[in-house]
Amino acid sequence: MKLLYPNSLNNTDAEILVTWVNPAARLREEARRLPKLRWIQSLAAGPNDVLEAGFDVSRILITTGSGLHDHTVAEHTLGLLLNAARCLFEMRDYQLRGQWPSHLGGAQPDRPEGKLTTLQDARVLIWGFGNIAKMLTPWLNALGAKVKGIARSPGVRNGTPVYGEEALVELLPNTDALVMILPGSEATKHALNKERLDLLRKHAWVINVGRGSSVDEQALVHALDNDEIGGAALDVFETEPLQENSPLWKTKNTIVNPHAAGGRPQTPTTLVAYNLTRFLTGQELKNVI
Amino acid sequence: MKLLYPNSLNNTDAEILVTWVNPAARLREEARRLPKLRWIQSLAAGPNDVLEAGFDVSRILITTGSGLHDHTVAEHTLGLLLNAARCLFEMRDYQLRGQWPSHLGGAQPDRPEGKLTTLQDARVLIWGFGNIAKMLTPWLNALGAKVKGIARSPGVRNGTPVYGEEALVELLPNTDALVMILPGSEATKHALNKERLDLLRKHAWVINVGRGSSVDEQALVHALDNDEIGGAALDVFETEPLQENSPLWKTKNTIVNPHAAGGRPQTPTTLVAYNLTRFLTGQELKNVI
Repeated sequence: MKLLYPNSLNNTDAEILVTWVNPAARLREEARRLPKLRWIQSLAAGPNDVLEAGFDVSRILITTGSGLHDHTVAEHTLGLLLNAARCLFEMRDYQLRGQWPSHLGGAQPDRPEGKLTTLQDARVLIWGFGNIAKMLTPWLNALGAKVKGIARSPGVRNGTPVYGEEALVELLPNTDALVMILPGSEATKHALNKERLDLLRKHAWVINVGRGSSVDEQALVHALDNDEIGGAALDVFETEPLQENSPLWKTKNTIVNPHAAGGRPQTPTTLVAYNLTRFLTGQELKNVI
Repeated sequence: MKLLYPNSLNNTDAEILVTWVNPAARLREEARRLPKLRWIQSLAAGPNDVLEAGFDVSRILITTGSGLHDHTVAEHTLGLLLNAARCLFEMRDYQLRGQWPSHLGGAQPDRPEGKLTTLQDARVLIWGFGNIAKMLTPWLNALGAKVKGIARSPGVRNGTPVYGEEALVELLPNTDALVMILPGSEATKHALNKERLDLLRKHAWVINVGRGSSVDEQALVHALDNDEIGGAALDVFETEPLQENSPLWKTKNTIVNPHAAGGRPQTPTTLVAYNLTRFLTGQELKNVI
């Protein structure tokens, strides 16, 4: 049994590959170069890069780094929600112009109807209610938000009601902030499409920290341009880096982040050691896709 | 007994004045015009505007709106802390230039020493540990921050250790984010001066949501210009609106907000009714300065 770490290129008889942020070309090369692989442990939350590299998934076990990014992604999401609700991005724009936006400071209405001005009492809908959502929800609750979830398996998770996608038609019109944490797959492609965007109210924000493919960007830009929704805070995009000619850079009330919510796997060695022990003893691994 | 609300200008025999965001000139006029005042209830957290208007404080009871702003100020403070730690302001600058800041996204080190990249494990020192801090601290704890406080009365508040100002010399060098929530007064003027700024480490952020007078802005700009601290997120200033020629607009790693943390008193009628009942029955009022 030999372990291959990405930086040791001498072995071709490795049976296990641990991978983290390797370029697509490099992964494709390893898929050709390592015929004896039996298990790939990715540290990424989603296995897309591994799946697209051409490994023989019929005989190679693939496990993800799901759980290693919960805290960091949840924290970034909270930052984006507060950035949106408290207009911090807009204040930054005024600052850069050397202007004091009096209308954004001083006396303000408290929780006016039909605006997202605070997370207190805000109705937050998390679409893709997994481990990241479970980390985020207690923070949102503490701040006074009212959280609901959408997931493949409905039910009550840690006290939060989670519904199936069929409930979107009822929930979207009653949402102040829609947080998308969907994985990238054919099943989630353009999950947030024109039809569903139309269900959101004029003040509702869309936050996407899952995968860019889950949002129809063209429909999103149209909704933003026409004030059909309140704004969008996007950390992920259909194409990354976001293309130079994308309208999203300058679409109004749109925040563009460079896929920064995750990217910092926490205690990955614990997961690798756990799974290695189970692999060596023939037990079921954690985070099998 | 007659109540005078700011918009009814006919009475001059009012004994009680409830005031919220009245201009200084208007308050000075009322101080001259209302000789029978016995009690002023401000909805602001700090009584500075009332104290500076020339009311005869030797015979007029003054109560503040302390407590009405705890949630909103604490929420805004959390937004600024996350904005700073997760570089959201910097990402905004890149977005406005149509640039994808690869170095701020993708793979990142997890909690590197000597940087504020997350609130998880961050050492947050709250200077001015009152009601706003008590609201904010559980949220910070939930996010994994390690919170300590500075206040006139040291002790343990809701589980958080709170020290007197004499502890600053030991605490400031071990602080990743210093949150200032000091009231405006002669006693707090330039509380954060050059000497204390010098005690902060190169990566430490200063957040000020209290009063602008508590920070020596000239010393702060010098520290920021010379990379002696990590950054500053300021919602309040020595002069507001921030003067056009202030260097703070363009000082590096500095976030300028237009006094937006509070400004939304919550359930003020409950406080006014409570204090009115006690005033009429000769009992001690809440929030007497």
